[in-house]
Amino acid sequence: MQTRTIGIIGLGTVGSGTLQVLFNNSKEIQRRIGHKLVVKLIAVKNINKKRNVDLNGVRLTENPYDIIDDPEIDIVVELVGGEGTTYEYLLRAVRNGKHIVTANKDLIANRGNELFKLAREASVQIGFEAAVAGGIPVIKAIREGLSANHVHSIIGIVNGTSNFILTGMKNESKSFNEMLDIAQKLGYAEADPAFDIQGIDAAHKITILASIAFGIPMNYERVYHSGIDTIDYDDVLYAEELGFAVKPLAIAKRTDSGIELRVHPCLVPASSIIASVSGVMNAVLINGDLAGETLLYGAGAGDLPTASAVVADIVDIARNMNADPSTRVPHSAFQPDSIADLPITAMGEISTANYLRMHAVNRAGVLAEVTRIFGQYDISIESILQKGTGKFEEVLPVVIVTQTTKEKNMNQALQELEALDTVVGSINRIRIETFS
Amino acid sequence: MQTRTIGIIGLGTVGSGTLQVLFNNSKEIQRRIGHKLVVKLIAVKNINKKRNVDLNGVRLTENPYDIIDDPEIDIVVELVGGEGTTYEYLLRAVRNGKHIVTANKDLIANRGNELFKLAREASVQIGFEAAVAGGIPVIKAIREGLSANHVHSIIGIVNGTSNFILTGMKNESKSFNEMLDIAQKLGYAEADPAFDIQGIDAAHKITILASIAFGIPMNYERVYHSGIDTIDYDDVLYAEELGFAVKPLAIAKRTDSGIELRVHPCLVPASSIIASVSGVMNAVLINGDLAGETLLYGAGAGDLPTASAVVADIVDIARNMNADPSTRVPHSAFQPDSIADLPITAMGEISTANYLRMHAVNRAGVLAEVTRIFGQYDISIESILQKGTGKFEEVLPVVIVTQTTKEKNMNQALQELEALDTVVGSINRIRIETFS
Repeated sequence: MQTRTIGIIGLGTVGSGTLQVLFNNSKEIQRRIGHKLVVKLIAVKNINKKRNVDLNGVRLTENPYDIIDDPEIDIVVELVGGEGTTYEYLLRAVRNGKHIVTANKDLIANRGNELFKLAREASVQIGFEAAVAGGIPVIKAIREGLSANHVHSIIGIVNGTSNFILTGMKNESKSFNEMLDIAQKLGYAEADPAFDIQGIDAAHKITILASIAFGIPMNYERVYHSGIDTIDYDDVLYAEELGFAVKPLAIAKRTDSGIELRVHPCLVPASSIIASVSGVMNAVLINGDLAGETLLYGAGAGDLPTASAVVADIVDIARNMNADPSTRVPHSAFQPDSIADLPITAMGEISTANYLRMHAVNRAGVLAEVTRIFGQYDISIESILQKGTGKFEEVLPVVIVTQTTKEKNMNQALQELEALDTVVGSINRIRIETFS
Repeated sequence: MQTRTIGIIGLGTVGSGTLQVLFNNSKEIQRRIGHKLVVKLIAVKNINKKRNVDLNGVRLTENPYDIIDDPEIDIVVELVGGEGTTYEYLLRAVRNGKHIVTANKDLIANRGNELFKLAREASVQIGFEAAVAGGIPVIKAIREGLSANHVHSIIGIVNGTSNFILTGMKNESKSFNEMLDIAQKLGYAEADPAFDIQGIDAAHKITILASIAFGIPMNYERVYHSGIDTIDYDDVLYAEELGFAVKPLAIAKRTDSGIELRVHPCLVPASSIIASVSGVMNAVLINGDLAGETLLYGAGAGDLPTASAVVADIVDIARNMNADPSTRVPHSAFQPDSIADLPITAMGEISTANYLRMHAVNRAGVLAEVTRIFGQYDISIESILQKGTGKFEEVLPVVIVTQTTKEKNMNQALQELEALDTVVGSINRIRIETFS
């Protein structure tokens, strides 16, 4: 039986999970690949730290280059995260002819273009299934399973923390801050939760999915993102009344004018399958011209789900690392000379329906003013809900659903609406995404 | 650019869809694989039949052996279905060194064991993604994407016709026969619908999924199956009242005593994601020790979804047909010498909770008799619903939900219950499947 030798950089949650899987499931994995996977060396920050994981005699080092420069090691598994130094590690590993497996979404989204080019030149593979949606094999599904499709769109719930918060607001009638607090106590959100709740994490992930779905370069800096921290409990409630659920979506969509790349909370039809993706669960909906809507749902984070993806990549690489590189699936799904730099649609040019919640003074002529501004920007109203008891001169919530509207028109209308004397405070806008 | 030459046997719905995809999406496919796919020859029954598909100059033949014996053809795509003659075709194609892509679930479920063995000896690949759940890349997800997992269970809605009928009974308050009629008119069900509604089609599919999930041989003849034709509208209604939905499930489950293989309608929690799989849509829920519950959802049938899977297999094969066979994914996911003949659990030995609907005479002591029989067979009752107005001596529906019970005990209890004077007619039993 052939052996594949592995070095792991990083022994945090995912690193420990990966090690555990490589030990515990080694028999089942060998039954599949017919090779033996051996972990030779693990690089950690502090070799003396007490650890809860059984190392089974694997040696630790504080120097990642002990792994990167070891000629016996075939596959370098990078599970430290970050970009600067980590990118240096991967660069040298690639130049040393090592295959790479990584869960590092920031690095792939930001440096994937260069890294893949170098990997190609060195004839090595980069596995990054674990970078998006944890245990769900969504990279493989898009790159290989749906390879015959012209992909129209990818719509994902890819940040479990955001989904957990929004689900809890609805199911437990809690405010955003209360749910954020719970998420932090449960370890779902970091002390600084910005990465998750402002949509940065999801923007990294949709960058990667868009690249392999459309055959475009990683375009992280072109992804629009806004967070879920603007969602009030009232929005969740009104959305429900209107037949919607509020979900944190990452969207990559091909239209005639280019590719839309955006991350923001959305109203989705309550009856849609994506509305039933609750708590920390992730899901990715792929719309292709042949398969139609395909949804992949599962655990998007956690030590073992992420390790599931890491080890699946190790298995793929172990299987074909000695094969002619031309027989492998290209890193970004498309042949390097076929990567097309399709135009990314500016956010102002996209079109969506919108949910608007404002506070307006209950006075004759208010709605006339509102509709005049809408008319001026070509915005059609789908429905208006006037909430509250309706006393004269009282400030009441008004919820408006627009038909599909160009973003820049909506933004201008919102500005004018907010400037009205009769509109108090700012207007909360949530885009609406429907599914055919 | 290298060329891969394809011959197609069968130009029905899926064959025409496949041809159309190979023409229409050829540019996107070439961007991915860097090879050109050329269809050289198509075998049909009647060369003179009028067809609605543009052949783009591809030659037709009435003799499949023109394809099978053509030394220029690399990949034989079999889309005629059936077993006898079709198996002969595939056998000879394999012996001639052709790679095979097929959507033929009966053939893989019944003859896959032999076919894979011969294919291995001939170093050719057999792609059968299209045999299960149409456009959903579930074979790839299980074989490769979740390869690090010890799979606990596979639970699928893999027969769209059955799901369409049960969904319609609920959503449109129709009887089984009315929905079957609609399904036939829409072309979802054959004139002879037995294959679909009696669970035979789903049994073929779960045979295949179980084989690649657990590394066991195809065990079609060991799959228990019962159909959805015993479900009444009342059952759908009562299930809803109890917080369940009725779904046509195919189940492969690993327990300490062996592998369960069964196809039958089930009550599933209304809040579970599998309950939201409606109409003709398919879904497969894979429970692995690492990834937890992963669900794949999408179109399970139709020309283009099935063609999506067929062409994805062609792409995989085109990519690595010249590679060392040891670098390929084994046909049944596990190395041939690792296929284990795990015991299949006899149906009497499985355990499930049960929903029972009976008609009982409204008379003192009836429930005492029922509970006495349950006690005798170690069956605990979860809940009892007595329906109807409750007049004395009237025959009223009684719905009982049991706790988890051994199947053979349940069967004996049902026999004794049906023999009671106070129980009129037969008892409708539906097993209950819950999800952690």
